Amino acid sequence: MKKLIIASTSTIHGSGYLEYLLPTLADFFAKTTTILFIPYARPSGITYEAYTEIVKKAFAKIDKKAIGIHEFDNPKEAIQKAEAIFTGGGNTFELVNQLYKKGVISDLKEVVEKGTPYLGTSAGSNICGVTMMNTNDMPIVYPPSFDTLSFIPFNINAHYLDPNLNSKHMGETRETRIKEFHVFNTTPVLGLREGSWLEVEDDLIILKGILSARLFQPNKTPVELKMDTVIKL
Amino acid sequence: MKKLIIASTSTIHGSGYLEYLLPTLADFFAKTTTILFIPYARPSGITYEAYTEIVKKAFAKIDKKAIGIHEFDNPKEAIQKAEAIFTGGGNTFELVNQLYKKGVISDLKEVVEKGTPYLGTSAGSNICGVTMMNTNDMPIVYPPSFDTLSFIPFNINAHYLDPNLNSKHMGETRETRIKEFHVFNTTPVLGLREGSWLEVEDDLIILKGILSARLFQPNKTPVELKMDTVIKL
Repeated sequence: MKKLIIASTSTIHGSGYLEYLLPTLADFFAKTTTILFIPYARPSGITYEAYTEIVKKAFAKIDKKAIGIHEFDNPKEAIQKAEAIFTGGGNTFELVNQLYKKGVISDLKEVVEKGTPYLGTSAGSNICGVTMMNTNDMPIVYPPSFDTLSFIPFNINAHYLDPNLNSKHMGETRETRIKEFHVFNTTPVLGLREGSWLEVEDDLIILKGILSARLFQPNKTPVELKMDTVIKL
Repeated sequence: MKKLIIASTSTIHGSGYLEYLLPTLADFFAKTTTILFIPYARPSGITYEAYTEIVKKAFAKIDKKAIGIHEFDNPKEAIQKAEAIFTGGGNTFELVNQLYKKGVISDLKEVVEKGTPYLGTSAGSNICGVTMMNTNDMPIVYPPSFDTLSFIPFNINAHYLDPNLNSKHMGETRETRIKEFHVFNTTPVLGLREGSWLEVEDDLIILKGILSARLFQPNKTPVELKMDTVIKL
C-alpha cells in the first residue's frame, strides 16, 4: 500500500516551515512516532545538521520525532527500518547525486512501494516522478543519472509559476521550458503551484491544497486540474 | 589570437533577433564572409533548419552569410574549416549533449583557441565557461558531462535577473542559486544581464553593453562590475 504526500513547497509565503501542511501531516503520520529525514538537497548549501534541526522543530509541533539519515551509520539500513520518510527541498541535482552515491535509490523505492509513508517537498517531490528533468534547480553538481523513483507515472514541476505577462525579461517561461521537455520526452508533467500537493494511495492520486495544477502532455494543450481532482493519465 | 563575443541574450525586449548587437557584429565579423551557425540548442525545440533561417536573415542585414552546421556532412570538418562560428541560445543541456555526441567539443575548442572568431548568445555563451553548471535551463536531456569549453576562466549565468523583492514566490532567486553553486564549486560566476556582453581578445575580457554585471566568487560578497570593466580574476 503506497502512501505519499508530494508537495510543491515546504513553505508558503508569510508562514513557517511546513506550517500550512501540519494539519495534513498530523493525519498522514497518525500511526508514526519517528520520521526519517533525508536532508541531502541542502537548500542554500545548509549542513545536514542545521537542516535537520529545522525539520525536528517543525515535526515537534505535531508530536513527531524527526531523525536525520546522516545520524545513522548505514543509510540503507536507516531507510529499510524507517517508520516513515521525509525528503526535504533544496537542490534536486545534489539530492539525486547523493541518493545514487550512497546507493539508497533502490532501498527508497522498495520501502515506499511496500508502504512506508513518504512525504516529499520541492526537490523531495521532484524525485517521486519518473525523472528529475523538470526541476527548476541549477545543475551545480553532475549526478550519475536523471532517473528517479517513479512513484507516480509522471514528472513534477514544483513551485510552478504562471508566465508573468508584464515581464520584459527574455528568459523562457516555465511553460516554454516544459514544452521544450516534450520535444525530447513523452513523460507527462504536472506543474504544482506552491500551496498544492498530491495525496497518493497506491494508484489513486488526488490533487489537494488551495490552487489548481497544470498538466502538460506531449502534443496536447495543457489543462488546469481543479482541487480534489483524481489524476488519471 | 582568441576572439569572442559572449552575449547574455540574442534578443532584448522590443527588438528583433540579434538587432541590438548588429553594429558590434558588423565590426567583429568585418573580415568574415560566412559564419558557421550551431543550432543544437533548439530554443522551444525548433528544428535546426527553422532556427538557421532566423539566423541567416539576421546576418543578411550586415551582409554576412550564415550556414547551419547540419548542412555539412561532417560537423568536425565544418568547424575546422569555418571562417567564424556562432552558437545560438536555447537549451544548454541539449546543446552540450549534441556537442559531445557529435564529437565536436575538441574541434570547437581548438579552432577558437587558434583564432576563429566566435559569437555566443545565451546557451552559446554558457558553454564558453568552465562548466555549464550556471545555466538557467531545464535538464530535459542528460549530457555526458557538464564540462564546457573554458574559453574564459569563469562561468556565465546568462539572462541574469535581480531578485524580485515584491515576489511571494518561494523558489530560489538567481543569487541564491549561484551561492548554492559555490558551496560545491570554486569557479567564479558572472551574472550577465540581458543587453550586456563580453568582448574577449586572448586573455583580455571586457564587459560591454548597457548594464553592469554581477560577479560571484566563493566566500566573497558579490560585486557589480561597470560597463567597460576589464575583468581580471
